Parts: sequence; C-alpha cells; structure tokens
Amino acid sequence: MNTFSVKAFGAESKTADLAEMNIERREVTANDIEIEILYCGVCHSDLHTARNDWGGTKYPSVPGHEIIGKITKVGSDVSKFKVGDLAGVGCIVDSCGTCDSCKQDLEQYCLEGFVGTYNGKDEHLGGYTFGGYSQKVVVNADYGLKIPKNLDLAAVAPLLCAGITTWSPLKHWNVGANSKVAVVGLGGLGHMAIKLAKGLGAEVTLFSRTPGKTEDAKKLGADHVVISTDNSQMDSVKGKFDLIIDTVPYDHDVNPYISTLNINGTHVLVGFIGKMEDALFTPPMIMGRRSVAGSVIGGIAETQEMLDFCGEHNIVSEIEIIKMQDINEAYKRMLKSDVRYRFVIDMQSL
Amino acid sequence: MNTFSVKAFGAESKTADLAEMNIERREVTANDIEIEILYCGVCHSDLHTARNDWGGTKYPSVPGHEIIGKITKVGSDVSKFKVGDLAGVGCIVDSCGTCDSCKQDLEQYCLEGFVGTYNGKDEHLGGYTFGGYSQKVVVNADYGLKIPKNLDLAAVAPLLCAGITTWSPLKHWNVGANSKVAVVGLGGLGHMAIKLAKGLGAEVTLFSRTPGKTEDAKKLGADHVVISTDNSQMDSVKGKFDLIIDTVPYDHDVNPYISTLNINGTHVLVGFIGKMEDALFTPPMIMGRRSVAGSVIGGIAETQEMLDFCGEHNIVSEIEIIKMQDINEAYKRMLKSDVRYRFVIDMQSL
Repeated sequence: MNTFSVKAFGAESKTADLAEMNIERREVTANDIEIEILYCGVCHSDLHTARNDWGGTKYPSVPGHEIIGKITKVGSDVSKFKVGDLAGVGCIVDSCGTCDSCKQDLEQYCLEGFVGTYNGKDEHLGGYTFGGYSQKVVVNADYGLKIPKNLDLAAVAPLLCAGITTWSPLKHWNVGANSKVAVVGLGGLGHMAIKLAKGLGAEVTLFSRTPGKTEDAKKLGADHVVISTDNSQMDSVKGKFDLIIDTVPYDHDVNPYISTLNINGTHVLVGFIGKMEDALFTPPMIMGRRSVAGSVIGGIAETQEMLDFCGEHNIVSEIEIIKMQDINEAYKRMLKSDVRYRFVIDMQSL
Repeated sequence: MNTFSVKAFGAESKTADLAEMNIERREVTANDIEIEILYCGVCHSDLHTARNDWGGTKYPSVPGHEIIGKITKVGSDVSKFKVGDLAGVGCIVDSCGTCDSCKQDLEQYCLEGFVGTYNGKDEHLGGYTFGGYSQKVVVNADYGLKIPKNLDLAAVAPLLCAGITTWSPLKHWNVGANSKVAVVGLGGLGHMAIKLAKGLGAEVTLFSRTPGKTEDAKKLGADHVVISTDNSQMDSVKGKFDLIIDTVPYDHDVNPYISTLNINGTHVLVGFIGKMEDALFTPPMIMGRRSVAGSVIGGIAETQEMLDFCGEHNIVSEIEIIKMQDINEAYKRMLKSDVRYRFVIDMQSL
C-alpha cells in the first residue's frame, strides 16, 4: 500500500516527552478521505496513552482524537465529502460494521472492539494508528464528520470527544426540557455536559467540591451549583436528579450522589476507569430503582447529530489555543486542572 | 375507632421465638375490606424483621406479607370486592397517593414511604401494622388484590412478594420473547424469577455456585445453568444477558456477572440490602453502557397485572405447607436454605 510521510508529535516511550517525528499515512483508497489537520483538541486520554497509564500503549505513540481539518483528497467512491470541505475525526476510525452494536450505530460498543484514532490496530498499514497531533490524517469517509460552518473551528474540536462523551448519555437517558441533570466535575467533559444539557432544555446543577467554580459554572449555563462537601446543600437536592453525568476521572465515592437521584434516576460514569473502592450502598438503589451505569463516547451518527445540534444552538467548547511545541507543558497543566476547559493545538504551528 | 381481637403469631422481642398472641384489628371503615386469612407465605423479610436484623422493628412484631384469604366484610364505599371473594394482600397497605411515584402507580417508591403490611406506621389505630400471621386482616380495598380462581391458593401466596419482586424488574427492563435473562440465586425469589421470565418468553439462565441445583432449575423452566465458580462456563456467557435478576440476600461480588451482560444490559439487585464491599470495576460498565440497579417489590397495579398473568399462564410458587406453630423451625430451616422454595402457613392451624 502506498504511503506518504507527514510531520507529527509523539512519544517514543512512556517516560519521554512528546517530540516531533515523521509518520506514514496511507494514500487514500476508494473509500477514504485525506484531511489536512487545522486543530486538534487535547484530551486526558492523550496524556494517559502517551504515558501508558492504562497499559497497552504502542510506541511511538501519536495522540489526538479531536481533529478538525480540511479535506485535501477524496477516494473514488466517496460521495459524502469533496475536496475543500471541512471535516472532523473523533475517537473512532473503524469498526466491524456487522455486529449487533454496529448495526445499531453503536460503533463505540462494537463487539469486535472499535479501532481507536490512535493506538488502535491499523488494518491498512499494520501496526497501530496515529492520532491527530500531525499534519494530515487519512480515514474511511464513513468515520468522517461534517462540521457546521457557523462555529469557531478550534472550539469545535473538543466536541469530538468531550462533547460526544457527554451528549451520548444525555440522549440515551432521554434528557429534555423537563429533565433535571447534575454534572459532577467541571473540566473538559463537565463543561460540555453543562452546555449540552442546557442546550437540551434541562435544569442543570453542577456538583463541585469548592465554591470557586460557581461563577464559571453559571456562565457556562448551570442553573445551580451544589457544594458536595456541604451536607445541608446535599440534603437540599435529595431525590432531585433524573440523571447525573459524573466526569470525575479518578476514584471517588458515588454514594452521596446516588441519594440525590430521583426515583428511576441514573448516575452515569464517563470519566473513571478502574475500581470503585468505596463500597456501594444498595438501599438507595433498591428503594428508588436507581442505577449506576457507565458510558463511553458515542457512535458516528450520534456524533454527527451532536455536531448539528451544536451548530443550531451555537454551542462550542471553551478553549485555550496552544502551539504543538507546547504540548508537554500543557500536559503538566492538565494534571493540575489548570485549563479552562480544553487545550486545542493550532496545527499550523507544526 | 372500633376494633376487634384476633389470634396471631408474633415476636415479643428480637430474641424471642414467635408465639401466639392476640392483636387488635380495626372494624372496616367505608373503604376497607376484612379478610379471613387462609394462607400466608413466609418471606426472608419476616425473619429479618422478627429478629430486628435491619433495625427499627417495633414489638410485638407480627410478620407476613404474602396473604391470601376470603373477604368477610366490605366497607360501604367498596365496589371492587364483595363478601366471599378471594383477595390477596402483599407488602403494601397504604401510601400517600399524591406524590409523583404514587401518581405513576409506583407505590413501592412512594416519596413519603409506603406503609408496610407489618412494622409500618398504622394511621388508623396508631402504633404499627401487624402482618399476615393472624386470623384476619383489614386493609383499604385499593391495596387488596384479586386472586385468579384457577390456581392453587396456597401456592399463590408467595407471588405477593417473591413474585412481584422479580416481576417488576422483568417488566421495567422490557423482558419479552427475544430477551436473554439470567437469575442469580435459586431461592424464593430466584425460582419465581425463572418461572416469570420463562412465562414472558425469555431465554433463561440460572447462575449457581454448585451443580446440585441444575435439575431443579431446569424443571422450573431454566434453559441453562451456568456454574458461576467455573471460569470457562462464565466465559461462555460473556456479553450474553440483557438483564440479570440478582436475588442473593447477602453481600457478594457482582463483577463477574457484569461481564456477562450484553451491551446496555442491567444487573438488578433485589435481594441484598447493605454495602457491596467488593469494589465495582467500571471498565465493563463504561465500555458496554452496562448498569447496576436496584428494585423493590412492585406497585399495586403491577401486582395485579402479575397475578392475572400467572392465572393465564398457570404460574405459582413451589411451596411447602406448614402449620403456624412450626414457624420457628421453618425460620431455622430458611437460614440453612432448606426449603424448596417457599414455606406457606396454613392459617387454619392457628
């Protein structure tokens, strides 16, 4: 298979800083699109993968799955895009297409495992996929997203992971104008959860451990902020929420939140991958048919739906633009939660 | 308020054996029915309440919430029943009737707390309600259930708690002809879960820790039995089930079961009230939108629906009939799981 070389930024090992490197991309096949990358959002998963925090990272590792760019080539069978179109690539660049999940447009739950935009098994070139910290990317057009023209392109990038990760549970659990939604954690995911839930018409509450985020949360659209360390505030929202989107990326006790769920309510984890060491207390679940669930990103059709919705409702992410060369410093700041609320790389800096 | 005295069996303290006593019942008011109790099933909750295992038991305590009997009096405003009719009383004898839950026929989730058939706050006489281990009971007709005439009356009694407790989650999570359901634990609840899921057309699997229950489970209608301590058998059902009804009444690790859930599957706890000490592992939940939920009994309308369904499908509980005087021995045997699958008291023995 013919390939071409592009500049990228990646890690050679789990202890190495990210640095410039060259990687190979395939020449477009009949169903592919080639995208010149304009912006790439910086997700916590990028950092975890570069440092092998979850195990399984293949090096060199080029992260990035919040990709916005312009199409530079289309394969002979592609009708969905043409050269010059804007396009996005999120977390998924391939899936089996035939399993029960894929047939329901739930590629994120592909029973064969979806192919991640980075660190996924590259069926075309062998080896592993490289993400968006690079000049260009080539993907099957079915996994390309159409980008609303009226939005700030850099600020659209984080919708492709942070946006869809919170949109998918909002939609799956039927959030609408009469819903009461709470969000735990105000970071990349949390701030999008607030904006999207608000966009869907819900009454939105942010749970925060400290009062410092109240003003910001309200600017983002939250109707209320509840300080989760204040028992009387927690009591005041007992039994209130239909859905809680929990974006906290580390282990934490979910029991106090479960008591704030309404009958039939669901606490959905989108951030924490691991063991919940705090013993789950079953009586509030049993006595109110409450659930604890998990959810990961979203399917391609659902991502398009979210992008279209954001276009109509003028919803984008709050971002800080950085140069590619600043990525290692950005990772350090992310670990200190020192970003409001998503770094986006201006790829022209590469 | 006028009362009359009936014989009952109850506990005077948490350490006392149950013994004969006299209790007061109210004379029927306009909306009440008086029932001569023919049979009363023996639920684990009876035992836990008599011994104050959950705290909060008021003594004397007369358990019993699987009541089948014949109507001996009806209040002046009652049209639902007439004297001589069969009637049942389950776990609920009152609820606020006006909260969001009650308005949705979810009295079991009444936001004011439903009034339990025993150990509940008796709004009529003051004090606390007395259950079905007695000659007669008086309840508001709205909380009385109509009993199918074609079924063995003694074997219907356990439907009023064991039956509805498993029926409600089967219905809430939309179990039908294409569903794959698993049941954890083969006791009073578990054996009803198998029968009802099978009645709804599902493919039913029993998870059991030992092979000894295989034959019984298949007789009850299970299509498969999976030995949960056998890793290869557990692997063979990975990702299979839409719903797991977990009837185990003590703390146990649910993680192995969660991996056997299909995408969007739910593991619903109906038996264990307490802290789940085994850390819940979130990746299978997140990577498959799987849930852990709780559920308690069911509403009055749903209980009637279940009874009617059982009448149509000839479904009853597997029972062993005992005399009232044998209740203390029966409790000892229940603690050793030495009953297939529910004791029912023939109240004529009192």
